[in-house]
Amino acid sequence: MRLLLISNSASPGEGYLEKASKHIQEFLGKQSLNIVFIPYAAVTYSYEEYEEKVNKRFAAFGQRVVSIHRAQRPIESVLRADAIVVGGGNTFMLMKKMQEMGLIDAIRERVKSGAAYIGWSAGSNVACPTICTTNDMPIVQPRTFEAFNFVPFQINPHYLDTHPSNHGGETREMRIAEYLVANPDKWVVGLREGCIMKVEGNSINMIGEKSARIFKHNIETKEINPGEDFQFLLK
Amino acid sequence: MRLLLISNSASPGEGYLEKASKHIQEFLGKQSLNIVFIPYAAVTYSYEEYEEKVNKRFAAFGQRVVSIHRAQRPIESVLRADAIVVGGGNTFMLMKKMQEMGLIDAIRERVKSGAAYIGWSAGSNVACPTICTTNDMPIVQPRTFEAFNFVPFQINPHYLDTHPSNHGGETREMRIAEYLVANPDKWVVGLREGCIMKVEGNSINMIGEKSARIFKHNIETKEINPGEDFQFLLK
Repeated sequence: MRLLLISNSASPGEGYLEKASKHIQEFLGKQSLNIVFIPYAAVTYSYEEYEEKVNKRFAAFGQRVVSIHRAQRPIESVLRADAIVVGGGNTFMLMKKMQEMGLIDAIRERVKSGAAYIGWSAGSNVACPTICTTNDMPIVQPRTFEAFNFVPFQINPHYLDTHPSNHGGETREMRIAEYLVANPDKWVVGLREGCIMKVEGNSINMIGEKSARIFKHNIETKEINPGEDFQFLLK
Repeated sequence: MRLLLISNSASPGEGYLEKASKHIQEFLGKQSLNIVFIPYAAVTYSYEEYEEKVNKRFAAFGQRVVSIHRAQRPIESVLRADAIVVGGGNTFMLMKKMQEMGLIDAIRERVKSGAAYIGWSAGSNVACPTICTTNDMPIVQPRTFEAFNFVPFQINPHYLDTHPSNHGGETREMRIAEYLVANPDKWVVGLREGCIMKVEGNSINMIGEKSARIFKHNIETKEINPGEDFQFLLK
């Protein structure tokens, strides 16, 4: 499998996918590909707008996505794709729509048989065993929280260390600690903004300027830097 | 129905339920009551610890809760209770455990037939039609997101206006905007920390020092202060 799992599309002051752009370009290569885009995490804007925003960035390196909402036969489109790109937004909405359209099995099959997979934010969440480490509000109920399971660990995208001052709500680390108690066999990668996990076959690496924060129940939380060994996550 | 729906247990620097204490006392009255406590939102601490923490506060006004995890026949305990108190923690865990134990119908029935209901944070969320406006991480999957439906609107507890600077994740207001698009018929009350919604029969009021932020799809978001009219929420 080939996976590019991106924490987020942009931080304030950055253009959409600006930071990830060169890594997406490198990951996809120079040949023009048949790329299917899954826009279903979009809630407050249209699939057309979403597709256009992505294509504006992809055009810079000569690629173009086609959003699945245009497909007459979505499952067949997925099964013919060279690459599948899943955009961020609301993870629950994304899962629900993909389930309703029967896309989960199709995308899983196609990526396992060789299509490149790129996801950011919600699109990285669904590459994990479940959506149980999303930050999103559960605005709709998907049939199941079980996702693509391309990697055996969970990603918490947009991982952040800060917490609004004088706020009684749970910190991100407290939320993940709850997840670990309920799911003691799973690793969680707190993927800070601007960071990317890249999987190629049996190899996994992190791209970015920050360390990842790695959690497991009853194991001391650690910070691992780009270039260091992430292989244990695939075991 | 009599409901006391509290945004949160405590903000930094406050004792547990310190701010809500006098309102809980007033709501329960002077007579010693048979109060059942639902501790199932607890994930990283024990039910015993949770019960003790609540009782430490309740003792100050001469009441005492008994946690449902001690009951030999939990459903019967609920049906005999004068008051039901649902503590905060993880909303998904709370829902899952209550569903597994068959408590949803029992609590709904008992509160509709006159028991007082007090909830904070997750405990306020589950008083709503669904848990779709929780801030919590979906660490486990409940069978359904449908909750007690004591009130026809949704509460977003711990509502906050601030957002970590330089963070690309959704603001709270963006998350609620997504909920509204997916659920255009529902009011959402952004209940700031320290605030309480009090329902007695057909009357609803807010207690607190801050305004509530009120959202509905295609309606201008408004701020409503304690003492102002909240009745529209029950229609």
